[in-house]
Amino acid sequence: MNENKYESRATSLRTHTCGELSAANAGQKVSLAGWVFTKRNHGGVFFINLRDLYGVTQIVVNPDSPLFKVAEELKSEYVLHVEGTVRPRPGTNANKNMKTGEIEVVAEKIEVLSQSHPLPFDLKEYAGVTEETRLKYRYLDLRRENMAKNLVLRSKVSQVVRNYLYDNGFNEIETPMLTRSTPEGARDFVVPCRSNPGTFYALPQSPQQFKQVLMMSGMDRYFQLARAFRDEELRADRQPEHTQIDMEMSFVDEQDIARIVEGLMHNIFGFLGDKIDDRFPEMEFDDAMLKYGSDKPDLRYTFEIKECSDIFKNSQFKVFAGALAEGGVVRAIKGEGGAKFSRKDMDNVTAAAKKAGAKGLVWLRYKDGKWESPTLKFITEEEQKALAERMEVKDGDAVFIAADKAAVAAPSLGAVRTFIIKTLKPQPVKKWAFLWVRHFPLLELVPETGKYTFTHNPFTAPLPEEISKLDTDPANVKSCQFDLVLNGTELGSGSVRNHRRDIQEKVFEHMGYGKEEARRRFGMIVTAMDYGCPPHGGIGLGFDRLMAIICGTDSIRDVIAFPKTTSGSCLVSEAPSELDESQLKELKIKLDM
Amino acid sequence: MNENKYESRATSLRTHTCGELSAANAGQKVSLAGWVFTKRNHGGVFFINLRDLYGVTQIVVNPDSPLFKVAEELKSEYVLHVEGTVRPRPGTNANKNMKTGEIEVVAEKIEVLSQSHPLPFDLKEYAGVTEETRLKYRYLDLRRENMAKNLVLRSKVSQVVRNYLYDNGFNEIETPMLTRSTPEGARDFVVPCRSNPGTFYALPQSPQQFKQVLMMSGMDRYFQLARAFRDEELRADRQPEHTQIDMEMSFVDEQDIARIVEGLMHNIFGFLGDKIDDRFPEMEFDDAMLKYGSDKPDLRYTFEIKECSDIFKNSQFKVFAGALAEGGVVRAIKGEGGAKFSRKDMDNVTAAAKKAGAKGLVWLRYKDGKWESPTLKFITEEEQKALAERMEVKDGDAVFIAADKAAVAAPSLGAVRTFIIKTLKPQPVKKWAFLWVRHFPLLELVPETGKYTFTHNPFTAPLPEEISKLDTDPANVKSCQFDLVLNGTELGSGSVRNHRRDIQEKVFEHMGYGKEEARRRFGMIVTAMDYGCPPHGGIGLGFDRLMAIICGTDSIRDVIAFPKTTSGSCLVSEAPSELDESQLKELKIKLDM
Repeated sequence: MNENKYESRATSLRTHTCGELSAANAGQKVSLAGWVFTKRNHGGVFFINLRDLYGVTQIVVNPDSPLFKVAEELKSEYVLHVEGTVRPRPGTNANKNMKTGEIEVVAEKIEVLSQSHPLPFDLKEYAGVTEETRLKYRYLDLRRENMAKNLVLRSKVSQVVRNYLYDNGFNEIETPMLTRSTPEGARDFVVPCRSNPGTFYALPQSPQQFKQVLMMSGMDRYFQLARAFRDEELRADRQPEHTQIDMEMSFVDEQDIARIVEGLMHNIFGFLGDKIDDRFPEMEFDDAMLKYGSDKPDLRYTFEIKECSDIFKNSQFKVFAGALAEGGVVRAIKGEGGAKFSRKDMDNVTAAAKKAGAKGLVWLRYKDGKWESPTLKFITEEEQKALAERMEVKDGDAVFIAADKAAVAAPSLGAVRTFIIKTLKPQPVKKWAFLWVRHFPLLELVPETGKYTFTHNPFTAPLPEEISKLDTDPANVKSCQFDLVLNGTELGSGSVRNHRRDIQEKVFEHMGYGKEEARRRFGMIVTAMDYGCPPHGGIGLGFDRLMAIICGTDSIRDVIAFPKTTSGSCLVSEAPSELDESQLKELKIKLDM
Repeated sequence: MNENKYESRATSLRTHTCGELSAANAGQKVSLAGWVFTKRNHGGVFFINLRDLYGVTQIVVNPDSPLFKVAEELKSEYVLHVEGTVRPRPGTNANKNMKTGEIEVVAEKIEVLSQSHPLPFDLKEYAGVTEETRLKYRYLDLRRENMAKNLVLRSKVSQVVRNYLYDNGFNEIETPMLTRSTPEGARDFVVPCRSNPGTFYALPQSPQQFKQVLMMSGMDRYFQLARAFRDEELRADRQPEHTQIDMEMSFVDEQDIARIVEGLMHNIFGFLGDKIDDRFPEMEFDDAMLKYGSDKPDLRYTFEIKECSDIFKNSQFKVFAGALAEGGVVRAIKGEGGAKFSRKDMDNVTAAAKKAGAKGLVWLRYKDGKWESPTLKFITEEEQKALAERMEVKDGDAVFIAADKAAVAAPSLGAVRTFIIKTLKPQPVKKWAFLWVRHFPLLELVPETGKYTFTHNPFTAPLPEEISKLDTDPANVKSCQFDLVLNGTELGSGSVRNHRRDIQEKVFEHMGYGKEEARRRFGMIVTAMDYGCPPHGGIGLGFDRLMAIICGTDSIRDVIAFPKTTSGSCLVSEAPSELDESQLKELKIKLDM
């Protein structure tokens, strides 16, 4: 047998795929297998485009061929095994848009391997098919070139990810799917345990605790392309199960982790043929909120929010004066070309700011060297001049002002910034804008309880220089928590964890958990910390989201083979479903509707 | 910064790992981080063995060092950051058994990063620790060299597997974990769906249906290192969740699949430095049962069961005569050196045969050219002579005879064969005995219903030449189902699937499922088959089991980071656990104990 057979994709039913024959194969006897993509009768000659994952090859059946009757019967998506001889297409017929466009295969044998019903939608003319139909007939949807490409690319990128991490001394270690429910964070999916009635496993929201325990086990560098589960209200970009590139390292600081992740992204984007920043810019969380009104600013665009409180410090406009009097701020952002916004646009941008918390939004258009605005009468000439300078306005721009507490003004203008990007489509300064946003607050006050809760992760360490503030000013302790942002999307969240038990306990105390309660909730980690815990840290990156960005789609469903609908159904397998009464009985549960 | 930093495992807390310093580093200032493995006070000098995943390095603290007081306080498993200078050990002190035995590091700074309680067991002297204790303190158990090695090797082998499959044109495609319960096969783990009360997801017992649908989606070559779940009674080698190397290919026959899997095993065992057969021997299921009494014979040993019905065709021994009269068989197997078996051994081997179905077992010892046995009086001289010739006995051997229906005699003598291997420990002829056992029966009669059930997989195709027997003799239709066996362990099961709808429907009819019922049970595949189904097939290989064999352990728990106990508990995370009443309420279920 030919030892090289399996370096190609040849099998007992094909010598070649439908994507690999070229003029170099002219004269060869070949066999192909695939689906009937198109069939044309051209002056008595049948031209069949045979398709597989790798391409399309034109099959020719001549009128005098004994196969003519077979060819007549063929319909779309029939599966064929074809034997024939490769011949170059006559010069004028060569199709440069087709990988195999130089040749065609003159059929000597056609075997129909299986037939197909008429399709519910056309695989070529695709517009207007609802996503519900696509998901129900996913096996047809995935035959479309762009969907198949997404899945193939996802596989290739996962290989790039793994090889890079292996090369950097990581081991992939599988953590359990049947684990313990933790009341923290999002809602768990649970699994009744038949062998111990009344108890339940939970599907992991992330391998967080296990990966930290692996560091305490001395495993040094862990990664996993891990499935994680969240029983949350679904949104367009959420799935009940998702995949994350999950990693954890011992004896590292924030910068060590950043270098590993940057290297990972260089490998992925290098594989895609794109150049990205060597080192990703770093931004303090506080600065991100101040300048961009967001903890995930889209730095493909450079325009920033400007502090204008000084300009309006003597304002008679009660909106500004009131905000400043209460310790708030007046800040503004410019929309280049925004003067063309209609009144309706202005209503929409105001609505966006309100959704983010603002009570209102002041807007001004700049035209012919002058401001215009319904609120212009409240702004003095001097203030107008100072504002024009501060915002560096040119004719045709618009400026949006929020006056409120900083915690409200910032996200409101962040929402305005997003609106401007979406509607005014400024020129991006780069294709891929990576950014580290770091030093998130460690704790957040829960007004109802007077206790604190963690902002990201109960195991995140405070910045070493902020540890003393844990006692005096817990709400303002900055942490070793960081997010990786790409083009305004949060790709993932990481941190350096507590390895010192005393600090971890102090954090738990702020959260209202004594030693016993902490053990009940986080038992695995709290106990393991007693036996020599190395400094460690890591990150989890959303793989579905990364692939959606790479594939240029807004929906992570387009990069998942069998996604759920926004109501949590899998239309192809028809999950979830009712159980037999006997199954419930065995599990010792009943419905309580 | 040093661009090459991350080609090593250096971090902000170490320049080297504890496994990499050698005489070549003499004189260098280094920093290390790890756990205190041992500490000795040798004439006032402290020798600390600092351990990480990669090795152990000896740290020296001299009596006049300012670090002496710190060193005095150190205890086992404290985590240290050490800075110091590498020096060669004096010639006689070099430790050849240690990777870093040529050198030691004279400490200039020791920082205790974290402390440890006294350990519940010693990581070096390990005998006698119960598995329960090991699982409870898994983070300590995994610090032991052999356990850490298993996990690292598992990671490396998974990389070999993936790279091989990528190289052969496979794409890794993730299939859902939240899927639909199927009443076939083992019991499902189920997950109540909050957003659609009264319905449940099921965790997949394998990606079987999804991977077949991927072939119908045109994805051509799929693989996945997939987590699969079975809610079965647990045994030593079972876990509620396990990992399989799962693959499926289009346009293939049995031999195509076999070549891919053989290539995979060549890559894995080649990576381990072992040579295995180029092509694995193939054995018909019928032959395996006849010659070895097992569908997973251990072919490291060549001895076979022999047909002896002809020898005893006129036997007066009512056990033999009765079996033959009822259409049964008389078969025998030899245990080389088995004459030394005590009466108790003989009782044990008889018990093993009975457990496999036999009513009893006849045994004979061969000593000094003569048989001896309690049943010798029922066997004529002539029969004795023929038996000695047939079995090629030598002095010191024993022979075991089963007389029963073939379906009982075969597995009974198979059990005897296993007993012989275990107790007499014959010389293996090879280290790794791979074997294809193939052409399992497609269907099996269920006496209670008069209907058939599939023996392995409801989608397996009959052998093409046996299709006509589907109508006339369904119980004897041989299938394209095959198992891969390694050293007597079934590594996995595969088949060529039905791609013809008419045949799949006929199989379902034999199972008692009309079109509607088939659609209800196997909806996804049955529907997708309507739209052009390619011939396809695949296999799923038990990755945990493979790794257990490779790591030389009997227990798959030794190759899983956080396994469950045989009662389904995870002792480290304390799963499963009770839920809060509010969680149950949200899920609209209640306990029914």
